Parts: sequence; C-alpha cells; structure tokens
Amino acid sequence: MNTLTKDGRVNVDNGSNHVSKFAKKIEITRSASDLRRRYQEVRALSERLCEPLETEDYVIQTMPEASPTKWHLAHTSWFFETFLLEPNISNYQSAHPQYNYLFNSYYNAVGPFHCRPKRGLLSRPTVREVYEYRKYVDALMVELIDHADARKLDSLEPRITLGLNHEQQHQELLLTDLKHVFSENPLRPTYRQRGIAKVNPVPPVTWFRFEEGIHSIGHGGSGFRYDNEEPLHRVLTNSFLLSSRLVTNGEYLAFMRDGGYQRPELWLSLGWNVVREKGWQAPLYWEKQICDWRTMTLAGMRDLCLEEPVCHVSFFEADAYARWSGARLPSEEEWEIAVSGVPVEGNFVDNEVYHPAPLDSQTADPAQMFGDVWEWTRSPYSPYPGYAPVPGALGEYNGKFMCNQFVLRGGSCATSKSHIRPTYRNFFPPDARWQFSGLRLAKDVK
Amino acid sequence: MNTLTKDGRVNVDNGSNHVSKFAKKIEITRSASDLRRRYQEVRALSERLCEPLETEDYVIQTMPEASPTKWHLAHTSWFFETFLLEPNISNYQSAHPQYNYLFNSYYNAVGPFHCRPKRGLLSRPTVREVYEYRKYVDALMVELIDHADARKLDSLEPRITLGLNHEQQHQELLLTDLKHVFSENPLRPTYRQRGIAKVNPVPPVTWFRFEEGIHSIGHGGSGFRYDNEEPLHRVLTNSFLLSSRLVTNGEYLAFMRDGGYQRPELWLSLGWNVVREKGWQAPLYWEKQICDWRTMTLAGMRDLCLEEPVCHVSFFEADAYARWSGARLPSEEEWEIAVSGVPVEGNFVDNEVYHPAPLDSQTADPAQMFGDVWEWTRSPYSPYPGYAPVPGALGEYNGKFMCNQFVLRGGSCATSKSHIRPTYRNFFPPDARWQFSGLRLAKDVK
Amino acid sequence: MNTLTKDGRVNVDNGSNHVSKFAKKIEITRSASDLRRRYQEVRALSERLCEPLETEDYVIQTMPEASPTKWHLAHTSWFFETFLLEPNISNYQSAHPQYNYLFNSYYNAVGPFHCRPKRGLLSRPTVREVYEYRKYVDALMVELIDHADARKLDSLEPRITLGLNHEQQHQELLLTDLKHVFSENPLRPTYRQRGIAKVNPVPPVTWFRFEEGIHSIGHGGSGFRYDNEEPLHRVLTNSFLLSSRLVTNGEYLAFMRDGGYQRPELWLSLGWNVVREKGWQAPLYWEKQICDWRTMTLAGMRDLCLEEPVCHVSFFEADAYARWSGARLPSEEEWEIAVSGVPVEGNFVDNEVYHPAPLDSQTADPAQMFGDVWEWTRSPYSPYPGYAPVPGALGEYNGKFMCNQFVLRGGSCATSKSHIRPTYRNFFPPDARWQFSGLRLAKDVK
Amino acid sequence: MNTLTKDGRVNVDNGSNHVSKFAKKIEITRSASDLRRRYQEVRALSERLCEPLETEDYVIQTMPEASPTKWHLAHTSWFFETFLLEPNISNYQSAHPQYNYLFNSYYNAVGPFHCRPKRGLLSRPTVREVYEYRKYVDALMVELIDHADARKLDSLEPRITLGLNHEQQHQELLLTDLKHVFSENPLRPTYRQRGIAKVNPVPPVTWFRFEEGIHSIGHGGSGFRYDNEEPLHRVLTNSFLLSSRLVTNGEYLAFMRDGGYQRPELWLSLGWNVVREKGWQAPLYWEKQICDWRTMTLAGMRDLCLEEPVCHVSFFEADAYARWSGARLPSEEEWEIAVSGVPVEGNFVDNEVYHPAPLDSQTADPAQMFGDVWEWTRSPYSPYPGYAPVPGALGEYNGKFMCNQFVLRGGSCATSKSHIRPTYRNFFPPDARWQFSGLRLAKDVK
Repeated sequence: MNTLTKDGRVNVDNGSNHVSKFAKKIEITRSASDLRRRYQEVRALSERLCEPLETEDYVIQTMPEASPTKWHLAHTSWFFETFLLEPNISNYQSAHPQYNYLFNSYYNAVGPFHCRPKRGLLSRPTVREVYEYRKYVDALMVELIDHADARKLDSLEPRITLGLNHEQQHQELLLTDLKHVFSENPLRPTYRQRGIAKVNPVPPVTWFRFEEGIHSIGHGGSGFRYDNEEPLHRVLTNSFLLSSRLVTNGEYLAFMRDGGYQRPELWLSLGWNVVREKGWQAPLYWEKQICDWRTMTLAGMRDLCLEEPVCHVSFFEADAYARWSGARLPSEEEWEIAVSGVPVEGNFVDNEVYHPAPLDSQTADPAQMFGDVWEWTRSPYSPYPGYAPVPGALGEYNGKFMCNQFVLRGGSCATSKSHIRPTYRNFFPPDARWQFSGLRLAKDVK
Repeated sequence: MNTLTKDGRVNVDNGSNHVSKFAKKIEITRSASDLRRRYQEVRALSERLCEPLETEDYVIQTMPEASPTKWHLAHTSWFFETFLLEPNISNYQSAHPQYNYLFNSYYNAVGPFHCRPKRGLLSRPTVREVYEYRKYVDALMVELIDHADARKLDSLEPRITLGLNHEQQHQELLLTDLKHVFSENPLRPTYRQRGIAKVNPVPPVTWFRFEEGIHSIGHGGSGFRYDNEEPLHRVLTNSFLLSSRLVTNGEYLAFMRDGGYQRPELWLSLGWNVVREKGWQAPLYWEKQICDWRTMTLAGMRDLCLEEPVCHVSFFEADAYARWSGARLPSEEEWEIAVSGVPVEGNFVDNEVYHPAPLDSQTADPAQMFGDVWEWTRSPYSPYPGYAPVPGALGEYNGKFMCNQFVLRGGSCATSKSHIRPTYRNFFPPDARWQFSGLRLAKDVK
Repeated sequence: MNTLTKDGRVNVDNGSNHVSKFAKKIEITRSASDLRRRYQEVRALSERLCEPLETEDYVIQTMPEASPTKWHLAHTSWFFETFLLEPNISNYQSAHPQYNYLFNSYYNAVGPFHCRPKRGLLSRPTVREVYEYRKYVDALMVELIDHADARKLDSLEPRITLGLNHEQQHQELLLTDLKHVFSENPLRPTYRQRGIAKVNPVPPVTWFRFEEGIHSIGHGGSGFRYDNEEPLHRVLTNSFLLSSRLVTNGEYLAFMRDGGYQRPELWLSLGWNVVREKGWQAPLYWEKQICDWRTMTLAGMRDLCLEEPVCHVSFFEADAYARWSGARLPSEEEWEIAVSGVPVEGNFVDNEVYHPAPLDSQTADPAQMFGDVWEWTRSPYSPYPGYAPVPGALGEYNGKFMCNQFVLRGGSCATSKSHIRPTYRNFFPPDARWQFSGLRLAKDVK
Repeated sequence: MNTLTKDGRVNVDNGSNHVSKFAKKIEITRSASDLRRRYQEVRALSERLCEPLETEDYVIQTMPEASPTKWHLAHTSWFFETFLLEPNISNYQSAHPQYNYLFNSYYNAVGPFHCRPKRGLLSRPTVREVYEYRKYVDALMVELIDHADARKLDSLEPRITLGLNHEQQHQELLLTDLKHVFSENPLRPTYRQRGIAKVNPVPPVTWFRFEEGIHSIGHGGSGFRYDNEEPLHRVLTNSFLLSSRLVTNGEYLAFMRDGGYQRPELWLSLGWNVVREKGWQAPLYWEKQICDWRTMTLAGMRDLCLEEPVCHVSFFEADAYARWSGARLPSEEEWEIAVSGVPVEGNFVDNEVYHPAPLDSQTADPAQMFGDVWEWTRSPYSPYPGYAPVPGALGEYNGKFMCNQFVLRGGSCATSKSHIRPTYRNFFPPDARWQFSGLRLAKDVK
C-alpha cells in the first residue's frame, strides 16, 4: 500500500518490486507522463465545459434522470477517489467523510448512496468546495501516477483509463443535463454564442447494401473498451440496406405534417401511451411559434434548420418515423458491420459546436456514422453471448442496466472523439429524449 | 357478402363461385364440420372454466393489467363479431351498438375503446347478457361456417383459427386474473377443490449439452402460428448447457434464505427498484405464517410444496435466482433448439389441475419443457429478422408490443395443449408475476 | 348478558330486574313492538331500494369515497351486530369470523378494517350471502327487542335508534354511490323509469330578512340527534337576508355562460386548482351534446330542466356561483335560524322520485329548505362550543371528521323524511359532488 | 402619472395638486423621510438575513410549499414594482420583461405566473441579478417617496406599508424555507452559530380563567392590518381556561412515550392518515440517535432541550396532544380575548436567536403569547362576518385562501416584532410543520 503522508503527499506502494528502479527509469517516466497527460487533459475538459456557467447553474436538477453540474464534477472525482486513491494509498483520508455517500451514483457494493432524484436538493458542498475536491483528488492522482513504478503503472493504467472514460461519459451528460436546465427556464439562457452558418442542400439518401454472412461483433483487440462490448462473437445476419446519411429535420417535419403524432398505427403500444400522456407533438426542444418551428440549442433559440439531422427524439419517435417511411431502424450488429473501415471522424465535442451539423457532401461510406447524433438501433440492450461483468463494484457499471433500454451507436456532438469506437454501445430507455439522439434508416433486402 | 336475414339466419356470400355446389358437398361438409367442432370445443371451454364462479366473481378487476371474467367472455366474442361476422355478413347487426366500444381491447384500427383500467367499473352488461352475447355470436358463427362453400371456408378458416387461439389465450388470462381476484379477498375463496397428492423427491438437476451451430428458429411450416413466430430464420449459437428440469420451490427457498431479496448485487437495477418499492420478499401468492410458508392456489391455501416448480416469479426474480445459482436464463433460441424433437406433452389446462406439478422422473429429454409453468428466457421480445406484421387491425396483435417485455416459452398448467408449439412466443413485462411463470437454468460452455 | 342458544335464539339478559315481569307486560309489549316496527321499516327500505338492481350492480366501487351496494347492506348489519348483538348476547357467534374485518368502516376501537378503496375488489361474500347476513342479524335483533324487559328496552333503544339513523345515512349513500356507478358506464343504465312532468316557471327570488340577535343553535330537546348537534349553545349573529328558494339549473347555466369556470377571481384558490386539475366545466353528471346540456339522472339521461334546483355541485362551485351573483352562502347558524318554525316537509326519498324537483309556488317561508338538495353552507365543520364525543367506539362517529369539511343542511331527495331535523349537520369535503348537493344564497344587510 | 426619465429618475405625478409645494415642504419631508426609513429598514432586513448564505443556498427548493431564497428576494421586489412603481410611474420600464411572469406568486389578476413547484428549477436570474433587481426597485421606490407631495404620500403610504408587511411575511418564510433546505442536506449546514445557554426549570402550568360574555374581535382601529382581520365584530363566548404558557418539548415527549403516534383514538381521521402515510413519529426536525433525541436548529444539531416550547408540529399533532392531555386548543377568539392588554413583547426575529426559548418565569398574564412559536388554534380559517376582500389584485391576498386551513396566532422567533398584532391571523393547512408552530392548551369551564 502507498501511504498518504501528513503533508498530503503520497507514498506509493509499488509492491514487492525489487528490480532496479533506475534501470527502468526512462521508460517509466515516459509511460507515467503519458498517463498523467491524458488524466489532466480529460479532467481539464470537464472544467473547461463549465466555463460559461454561473454558480447557480451548477446546482439545479430539472428531472430525476439528470444531475446537477456540480454533482457530475464531484462524482467523477469520487470515482478516482474510490477506485484508485483509496485502494492504493494506505490510511487514505477522504476529502470529506460524507462525500462517499453524496457522490456515489449507484454502486451498491461501495455502500449506501444519496437518492438520485434528490441530487438537486443540496446547496452544499458549494461549487467552490467541489472544485477544491477536484484539486485534492487531482493532486493525489498525479502523485500516485508519478510515484508508481512500471509494474504499478501497469496495474493502475486500466482503472485510470476506465475513470477517464467514465468522466468523458459524464461530460456528455453534463452538457445534456445543462441543456435541460436551460430549457426549463423561461429566460432561455445561452450556453455559448455561436454564429449561424450558411447551409447547403443535403444530398439525397442512397442505400448501401451489405450482404448476408457471418460477422464478428464486439471488441476483441487491445485498447480500452467497456465490458458490455465483450466478448467478440460471431453473428449471422441477413442482407440489408443502410441509409447513406442521418434523417434530417426537414424529413422529420414531413412525418409530423403527415399526422405522425396522431396516428397510433405508426407507434409501438408503449410509445403511443407516452405520446398521449406527455402530449408529445414534436422532438424535445422544438417550440412552435405561430406557424414556424424554433428550437432551443446551447447557442440559444434558433429557427429550425431543415438540413440538420433531427435530434432529441426518443426511440419511440425514431421507430415511428422509420415505420412511417417504410423502413426500419438498423440492428446494432448491422450498424457495426456497416461502420467497419469507416474512420472515426465527425462532429464531436472537440469541435465546440455542441449541436449536430448538416451533411455537406456524401462520401463513399455511409456518412455521419460518428458524431452529430447518437443513432437509435432496434436492438434491446442485452448481454452479448458469453458476457460476464467484471467482479466487484465495477461490475455494476454496465450489466445491471441490461433491461428495458435500447442501444445507440456512434457518439454525438457532445461526445469526445477519443471516447468513441465502432464497438461502443450506448443505451437509454425508449422514452429518453434529452440526449443528442437521432436516427438513420435501414431496410431488409427483399 | 353474406346477409343476415330478419330471422337472424345468415346468408353466406360465397363469392363468385359458380361451380356445382353439389359436387363438392361431401368434402365441404367434412371440413366445415371439423371447423365447427373446433370452434364449439374452444368456445365451450371458456364457459366450462367459469362453472365454479358466482355471478359476482365475473365482475371484479383487481389490477390494471387484469380483466374481469365477463370481459374476457365478451371480448373473445367481440373478436369473432368484428373480424368474422361483420366482414362476412351483409348488413350485420351487432348484438349491441356499444359492445364494440366496450369489448375492443386495443385495436386502434377498429375504433376507440374503453380504458383498460376501467373494465372493472362496469356492472352492465350483466353476466347473463354476456352469455347471451356469446350465444348470439356462436349461432351466427355456426351458420357462417355451415353455409360456406369450400372456397369460402378456405378464406374463413385462418381467421377463425386465429380467433380460437385468441380465445385460448384469454382462457389462460381468465384463470390467472381470477386467481388474482381471489388473492385480494381476505376470505381466500377456492376455485376448485383438489386433493393433496403424495409427492416423491425430485430428481437432481443434470445438464443437457447443445453444440455450437447454425439453427433454424421460428415457424416455417404449415399449421397455425402467430406472426411473431415468423419468419423462419437462421441463427448462430454458441454451445450451451440446459437444466434437465424446472427450478423448484425448495431451491428457490434456499435463494431466499441466502438473502436473495436483500442483496442488490444479485439483481438488475430496475429489478432491485421494484423489490424495494413493492416490498417483495417471496413469489406472488406466498404467505408467511409464523415460520412456514403457505401459498394460495386455485384449490385454496396450501402448505408450500418444496418439490413443485417455483411459480409466480417475475423475470427479475428468475434472473436474480439464476445469477445467485451461478447460471443464467436460456435465450429463447436456446430453448427452441433444446425442445426440438421433444413431444408437446405436459401438465396443461386439459389436466384440470390448474397448478404446476412436481417432476416425477427424469426423461431422456429435458423434462417439463411444456406445461406446468411458462419459462422466462433472457430474450427481450423483439421482431425476428424480416418480421412484418400482417396488414390491418390484426397487425396490432403482436408487433406493437415488442418493447420492454421478455419472452416466455413452453406454456403452463393454464394453457390448452392444442394452443402450444415449440415456436410459441409468449411475452410479459419483467415485473409481471401473476401468470404461471417459472424458470429453468442454462449455462455457457466454457 | 343475554345468551345465544344453540338453535340461534336469544336469551336476553334483562339484568338484575326482579320486579314482576307480568305487571309490566302490556307496556313493554307496546314499546317493544313500536321499536321492532321502526327497526323493520328502516331495514326493509334498504332492501326495497335495491329492488331495481342486478346482482352485478351490488359489487362495483367506482371511486375511493364510494362503496359497493352490498358493502352498504353488510356494513349496516355489522353495526347492529357489533354495537347491539355482541354486547347484549352472551357467547354471541358472529355470522362469519371475518365480517368484522370486512364490514367495519372506520372504527379503530373495534379493530383493524379492510382498506376503504379496496371495497370494490371483493366478489365474496356474494350478494346472496349478504342478504343472509342481514336475515341473521335481523332475526336476532327482533328477538333481542322482543325479549327485553322495559329497563332493558330503555338501554337498547338509543343504540338501536342510532343504528337505524346510521342505516338511513347509508341508504342515501347507497343511492348516490349507485348513481356514480351508473355514470361510469357508457351504457347509462337506468335505476327506475320515471315520466317527465310538465314544469311551470319558477317564482323569482325574494329575500327573507332575519334580524341581528342572540340565537340558540343546536339540539337541546329530547328525541334522537347526533352528538355533533350538541350542545345547545347561543350565538350572536348579524342581520342577514336569505333567498326564498334554491338556485336553479337555469341560473347556474347563466354563471357558466358568463365564464364561471374560466375566471379564477370567482374561486377559492384550492377550488381553482381542482377546476383545472379535473377539468370541471359543469356540475357532475351534466353532458354537453353539441349545444344542449343533458344530465344523467336515476331515471336515465334527460334534457337539462332549467327550473330544477342545480345539483351535484361542490362547495367550491357553490361558493364561486355565490360570489359571481354578488351574494354569499349562508352560515349554518343562519340556515338554522331561518328554518325555525318551518315544517319538515319536502321532496324526500319517501317520494320515490330520486331527483330534485322544481319549485311550484313560493310559500310564506323560505321554500325548499328541506329535501330536494343538501344546501352547502359557508361553515367549516367544527365542534360546537363545549362539544364532547361520546366515549368508546361510537365516539368515532362524528368528531374525528371535523377537519377540512363543510356543513350542508336540510336533506335531499335521497334522504328519509324521518331522518332529518332543523339541527341536522351533514358534512363533506369541499370538492365532493356526488351527493345531491345544491345551494341557496344569503346576503349581509348593509 | 409620474414619469421615468431616461436617466432612470422618477417624475412623480402628484396629481392635480396646485397648492404651493414650498409651503408644505417641511411636513412632507418629515412624513416622507419616515416612510423612506421604514422602507429601507424592512428591505435591509431581508438582505441581512441572507448574509450567512452561500450563493448555492439561494437556489434550492426542497418542497412545493417552499420557495428558494432568491425567489423570496425577487418576489418581494416584484410586489413593489407591480403595485407601486407601475401604477405610479408613467412609461414604467420593468427591470426585465419576464420578471413579472417569474416572480408573481399567485395573483391571477396580474397575469399568468410560473408554476410554484418549479421555482427551484431556475438558475437564472442569478443571485447577483436578483440583488440588482432589488437595487433597481429600491432606487425608484425611494425616488417615488421623496418626490411625492403630501397628498400623494397619503395615497402611497397604505400600499407601501402593505408591501413592507408582505416582505416581513416573506422574511419569515425565507428562514423557515431555508431551514428545510438545510434539513434535506446530509451535511446539516448551520445558518448561524449560537452558544448553548443554561436553562432553568419551566414554571408549572396554571390556568387563567376568562368569563362568558360578548367580546369585540378583529381590528377596528387605525394602523395597518390585513383585510382578514376585519371587520371588527362581536362574538358571544363561553367561559374558558387558558394555559399560562406554551407546551414544552418535555411535555410533548411524554405524549410520544405514551404512544401518542400509535393511538388512532387521539387523532382526527385525516391526521391519522397523514401520520401513517408520512410515517410521523415526532415533530419535524427531531432525529433519534440511539435513545436520545436531537433536533436540527438554525444553529446546527442540538440535544433536545426539554424546557423549550415544542415546535414544528402540525395542527394534527397539536390537536392530538391536546386531546391526550385532556384539554383542547383555544379558538382564535379565545386567544384574542386572552391577549387583550398583554404587551407585544417576546422572542422575535429581532432577537436574532431564530429558535423558541424556554420560559424563564411566569408573569401575571399568560406568558409567551407573542413570539417563540405560532400557536395553533382550533379555528378553521374563515371570513369574519361581513368580511369583504379589497377590490382588484390585492383582494387575492387573503380571502381566496379561506378553505382547509387553520388559524395560528402570536408570531414566532422568525417574525418581526413590528409585524405582529393581537388581531393578526396567520393560517396554514393542518399538516404543515415547517413553520415555527407550537401550541398552548385551553379548557372549557364545566
């Protein structure tokens, strides 16, 4: 075990490692500095995303599924504290004895936790205290990394990488939750101003054909992945067609004008219930103004851009649109087959646009597979054949949510580019709309 | 079109059929009489199942998901009226102008319908009037069959068969809904008395191994099937092991005594929420009496029989039990592969036991695959590749429910033997417990 | 104690009464026979009110505040069993060991009871069994009365009279609950057919003036009264005016047409919330048909009769109407002062009309003070100064409900004439509408 | 009309006032300066009460009945803007066009308003902006006062005084709402540190007797009062006894230990429902720690002080305690009779203790009638005879809440001394506990 000295520095316990530390010095330094740099970059992005915020914006929770910004900032730090600092520093002193209770999200194995829908009822710790908490954790994490020898680094690296990916997920949620906070406010605050670009017509849809066959699905290589992407396994799929691009606002508007939200035959039974109970008439954040639609973006209220990919639709709406258009949603396996060889490039959070962008021109591959909007698939979120969660608290990360959710693929304008992969499985309940979620069509080959 | 004459008899419109009716007379008669016999047998069972009831028992609805007995009796008649009598009899006069509104379950294409949770608020039509409604429909249905020529019969037969299968489904619901009605009554009424048989020890579990391979799944032959069993398609599955028999009450009790209902790590996240919100401590209908468990059956309160298959568990409980036992639930494809060649025999409603029975002795095949209890699978209820619902109102039968439900296989002690098939897909939400639902374990081959 | 002999007959324990029974024989007989006759008359009315019902009608509960007919029939019998038979017959055997649990309404002192909103979930005991329960209780009650000597009769009489008044209250609820059951049924069943009478114009409102002064309020004489009418006490009231008659449907319609249900300034704050949450647009049981209003009565659907007293309005609606009309509701003391000397005559349940009737001609007194509709007063239901509930379980009859309810006066077309008095205080929450409740206006003298 | 000049100064429209302004200068100045001083004092207290707060504390709403601190600060400013600035300054420019929507509490006559339970979903305007809003309003209010001539001042003074009393009410709510915010936080923040004083034994209860008679109730003099205190009217009351002091924590603990929360016979029916639904076992803010009770105060967690008046009890609890102790709550008239001649002195917010204090010694009058805790009376909140709300929006201040609430009297440790009067009527629903509410006993004279 490492030790936390009285002046707050870490004595890293490098285990029974008796080889000459000097001999490996250079190599260690390079690996440690790389890890430290990655750590600091990801952690810094969380704070950079908060730069436009007022203190008050950090505190609000506008629905049970969302969390206050300051909770995201604290929870991601708690993750490093709980899964890195505590197990690796002897006599580790937490920044505050109740932070474990307050900032544990759902890990039953780590103890009781504060009820999720009550996260917005806490004025303390203050935003300043949360940033101090981050600093406290960051200082110790950097020490932990810097004082680890090679063998130690090898054991730390996977968990730190998990923690960084975890933080990237919360960065996306931070933006989508904040967008929801702003949407509840009649003042319609703006996150970041952005100019309105000139938009070209969107290329018409063409269909890419993929042949029947046995394909390998899931992650089998090296590099980071969540356990839900494993194991690599083979599936037999029929031939299918996949649309060359995402469905646009203009196309979705045609569905609406054709009575899309009034025709039960287009909807799953549960979806139709939701439409009526919640009075859905359009995607989330669309607002009708006399006869024109406007939409709330992180850059403020905008006229609806018909060329942009439709966004903030639920699985139910995506599925109804697909049925209306005579097509269907792709399965997650089909999506993964189609993306094989397509480079991971697109409109990610790194672009600092925070909104899906119209397609400029069609490429040789299906376009917009990565970034812009998460694409709903028709696949319920289920374990892959042979899936087994990792043991311990981290096994609660994915597996226990494999029920009543649907898989989304490809990342969005709020996702970090370094976070996404062809095998990445995102998942949300079928009525969730506050993510940057859209759709692409598929068809059977008759 | 056929015509309803003033004296209530049917003029069947046999279409532009100008061939000699006499020549085909014998063949027609045989086919018609066979169809009439099937019709009458199934319809008679609905009424025979009600023989033990008091008038008051027909009226009660104890939860939104269940329906009053008299609603089942009327709705199944409405089905024949709507999908057979109305389209085939010209100037068809419904038994009552508002029955279409009252007894339509969920077919939006057929018009508005009475809100499901309010089915128990209707004292009228009375039970007697509902039986008269059945008689009215039955008389016309028999006439319709008897007056149809061969070509007409060919067109009627599939829909009549669908109507009869529909009625068989409601016969099962009639029993499970009634059981729930009785369970809400502190007087604990008995449906039918039944002696307590001597029970032998249950054979220990053995594991049947099935090899990796490509299998055909779904219904591809002739004979009746629901559209959700189609199309026949090929899947690639890993090797797996399947338990030789169902999980018993005694085994489930061991799970409970090991803290099964108190350990979040055993549960899906949604399942754990339900356990806490509803205070689940045991399967539905179990009642603790000081230190012993008793269970409410359709034959009254009984001491818990440890050898009987565990029943009235939700998907969440089945899944948690499987996790606790170091196994998992089978997928629906695995179940279907395993049942290949196994005869459709078991403890069905035809046995008039209305309760799952202990296994007597192990067979060469996995035992209890049919009857006793529906077996939860790990498979979310999804369309098969290439699935397309039938057009029109009957397309609302299955497809629109393919969301947030799980597949069960094999039928139960409340299912008609003639209703079940190896490819039959039943489905319920993961928290449903009032069906005769149990489980069988599976394992990966490592 | 009296004793229940094996053949079910009662041995009445007449206490330490050693005077010659013979000497008092004639007097006893007269008093007993009078009490028996009253008992039998009231009990018979409950059953006569049920004559038009089908078995199924007895079972339904359409809202938590209402009860099934068979529950009313059983609960009123339970009252006699619990408060008369059990304390007065030694070794009393209840008709059924669980009826005390099922048919206790809310008397905590008598033990636990079945949850009120679940009264409609019980198919058993059947209607036939409930009638047998009534017969069982009636036979023993008659024996109890017949075998009691004078002293015993003196002690029995007050409780029996309470039991009979209790039953009369439930007779009114039986009718109003049944009306609600029928209103939930799209078939709109009819309780009892009734012809449509010719209606004369209603006399215009005149105002009766009552002078400032000290008045005695409450019940101070002999004769039956509920404890909430006691003690007799003096109040000092200002001069006031009281309307000569009830508000009519026609007058209420003018309020509606003047935007009554759309103008928050006319409503109490809580009332306005209810109007919006429940979407109230008219009194209960009014149905708009294109441009005309119809109303559901116990004699079926009728065109709205403008001359009838408005009925099925809540306190909130009565209060809003009064404010709109520039008047106010009377206090219960004002109502009681105004009714002094007015004979207890009107359109009661004894008339077998079951609906409020238009006023024919104005009398020298304020008209329609008794019968037709209960009149909402502005008085919250509170204890009179010096009020003390009777000790024991019967103390739960009234006092514990003195919170968040308002007083109504005068009885309705569903009240027995023998049940009502000038001092009678009925009470319901301000949003209750399913009673026959209307209003009369009052004004301050400026 | 006054005019808002471009530099933001007010041109006060003093009406058709042609007398020499100079002649009245001195008098005007004195009156205006007095009003200005009162205005500034009350407004300053709101901000002084917020001094201990962090920015985040201003934002939170922990229950629908409570409001965020910043909402209180803004709403009280909106009141002056709406009812003083707007009608008196021509071309008045609101600080922000949407503040009227956001900070109107419930005045329908002033337009639509933001839904009360959603006040905690607004991060903007920020706390800083709200303080700027206050400054904006204050500057204009001071100008309005300073530029008004005598006649104008006469017309402004009543509304300004109403606005200041309104602000004082919100100062009390600000403290009680904040206490609730802190109570929801597991960190149990402290509002203001306070030492623990030595406590003497509380004098035993004695009973003050008041004789039967006709008394004048309500406000009939000059000086500010709410419309609900009017008109002055006479009531006839029986003789009664009133306790010499408030009920203490120690006495309430005896009630609890005698099963107070487990005995339905002690409770009103609605109260008993609340006890069971919410699981009440003690007053709000009491926390059991093994065997001792602690209580959350604005000075942090404290051991329960037995000598302090019991606080944070609902009407239901006060009523049950009184019944248990063989007494009852006083009526509001009795309380007002008893307080006649008692000086308005006590533990008010001016003391800066923010917590009820133990009684030191008995006085010749009933002690603690003012300050410490609001005293529940048995009186439903109803209009006095002859009551009429003021016309216009300000008529919504009181009258529309006269339903399902109970009157409290005497002010609390969170009330400004200058705000309270013998005739002051506070009111809350019978289950409200988050105010500083306690009780004093009364008895009938037998």
